[in-house]
Amino acid sequence: MSFREKLAHAVERNGSLLCVGLDPDPARISGDAADFLCAVVEATSDLVCAYKPNLAFYEQMGEPGYAALRAVLQAIPDDIPVIADAKRGDVGHTAQAYARALFDELGFDAVTVNPYLGGDAVAPFVERADRGVFVVCRTSNPGARDLQDLAVTGEGGPRPLYEVVAELAKEWNSRGNVGLVTGATYPEELRRLRELCPEMLLLLPGIGSQKGDLSAAVRAGLDVDGAGIIVNASRSVLYASAGADFAQAARAEAQALRDAIEEHRQAARAEVRA
Amino acid sequence: MSFREKLAHAVERNGSLLCVGLDPDPARISGDAADFLCAVVEATSDLVCAYKPNLAFYEQMGEPGYAALRAVLQAIPDDIPVIADAKRGDVGHTAQAYARALFDELGFDAVTVNPYLGGDAVAPFVERADRGVFVVCRTSNPGARDLQDLAVTGEGGPRPLYEVVAELAKEWNSRGNVGLVTGATYPEELRRLRELCPEMLLLLPGIGSQKGDLSAAVRAGLDVDGAGIIVNASRSVLYASAGADFAQAARAEAQALRDAIEEHRQAARAEVRA
Repeated sequence: MSFREKLAHAVERNGSLLCVGLDPDPARISGDAADFLCAVVEATSDLVCAYKPNLAFYEQMGEPGYAALRAVLQAIPDDIPVIADAKRGDVGHTAQAYARALFDELGFDAVTVNPYLGGDAVAPFVERADRGVFVVCRTSNPGARDLQDLAVTGEGGPRPLYEVVAELAKEWNSRGNVGLVTGATYPEELRRLRELCPEMLLLLPGIGSQKGDLSAAVRAGLDVDGAGIIVNASRSVLYASAGADFAQAARAEAQALRDAIEEHRQAARAEVRA
Repeated sequence: MSFREKLAHAVERNGSLLCVGLDPDPARISGDAADFLCAVVEATSDLVCAYKPNLAFYEQMGEPGYAALRAVLQAIPDDIPVIADAKRGDVGHTAQAYARALFDELGFDAVTVNPYLGGDAVAPFVERADRGVFVVCRTSNPGARDLQDLAVTGEGGPRPLYEVVAELAKEWNSRGNVGLVTGATYPEELRRLRELCPEMLLLLPGIGSQKGDLSAAVRAGLDVDGAGIIVNASRSVLYASAGADFAQAARAEAQALRDAIEEHRQAARAEVRA
């Protein structure tokens, strides 16, 4: 089953467009990181359409971090797709090694990649038609403006670099497995990207701790079928409680987010039908 | 001792601007990857100014790859700086985790980073004033043109994105520890970057297997003091022989490259003096 099919099934089964980012912060976890994350997975796996571990948070722990990542991947039910938030980007033969690391050695269903090195740096991921590839397009950090918003010259007049990246991602999408990463905090940019890429999956970080406006983001990002977005929350779910009830608190927060997304989605669809 | 001082000492001691990339390819190594790499380090450490493991090649091997990386880092003499070719790039708190992984957990002296997410994604690395940070600027792969050569509008007329990245890297260089990664196969671009950034360290992949013109690259990249470049070769050194004599062959290739770089450097300096 391809990433996209696996995702569609999880969306349907759990009635959810919510992805939970599994990013362990040793300063906020009392006890073993793997146990903590596996408990969160167990408490939330009927509420999400995907999980997204960001590799940086495992790498900072060295070998125990690698072991924790293995344990978390093992704990996630087989029918929930898992996205490696890795943002890798390197020349062809190196990108091939990264693809082997993430898809074969670790078994991820999808990955985030950085576009700066161009098409041949993304190709080794895209060639794996059964996996998903999310090209980082417009992020929600302040520094995103430094490059992503630069005006690039072109036939129809200047336009921001991130729009050019979206167009490139469409070119790279010969196998139908390419999506975009775009911050949820800028609904106007999100709306523009949805216009440019009506059929692409959009992975939206920036909900929860990053304080995006959920309603605006959902409305701006939905495709014509009222789907096509994956809304990620990490810290707001993982660290919903600092106490021993962290797993129940994570479940409550995930449920609230899932329900809020679903409510905005239904409202948007009703408006379209009206 | 800072990365820059450690590098200067190694350049002086070994009379070398050569960096050897330690990128294990399981298909080309008979036997244990860690043993292979440690033998290459032992055979070349008096000929190089730095080593540069690209993390992709270790990550593709899973846990044994991580162990091999640890073994290689242990085998490199303390007075040779080690650059993590990681090309990481993520939002601030995630970039902090990557900086901890690479600088603290693994102990690298320097790192390559991707500029696409902007200044706050690079800052957690740059803040470590004793470490080096090489911003990926202009790579030598075909896809480099997709983004890096795009014409960005500006006051003095349009100019390529990679030049804007070089200017940004100068802004980010408040602590004097920022350099650029730029492919050695495009001497004109390299010359232009040296003009823009007269005092920055330039890390030049693209020698050896990637067939850059060594003479042109050295001449284009040298700073006014006849230094300021790190010339990397990976596969041409590591796989100089497929036989049991791989370490001696690696030494011979490293020596030939070091001497060729030194010859071009002396010629360039003589021309400047003439």
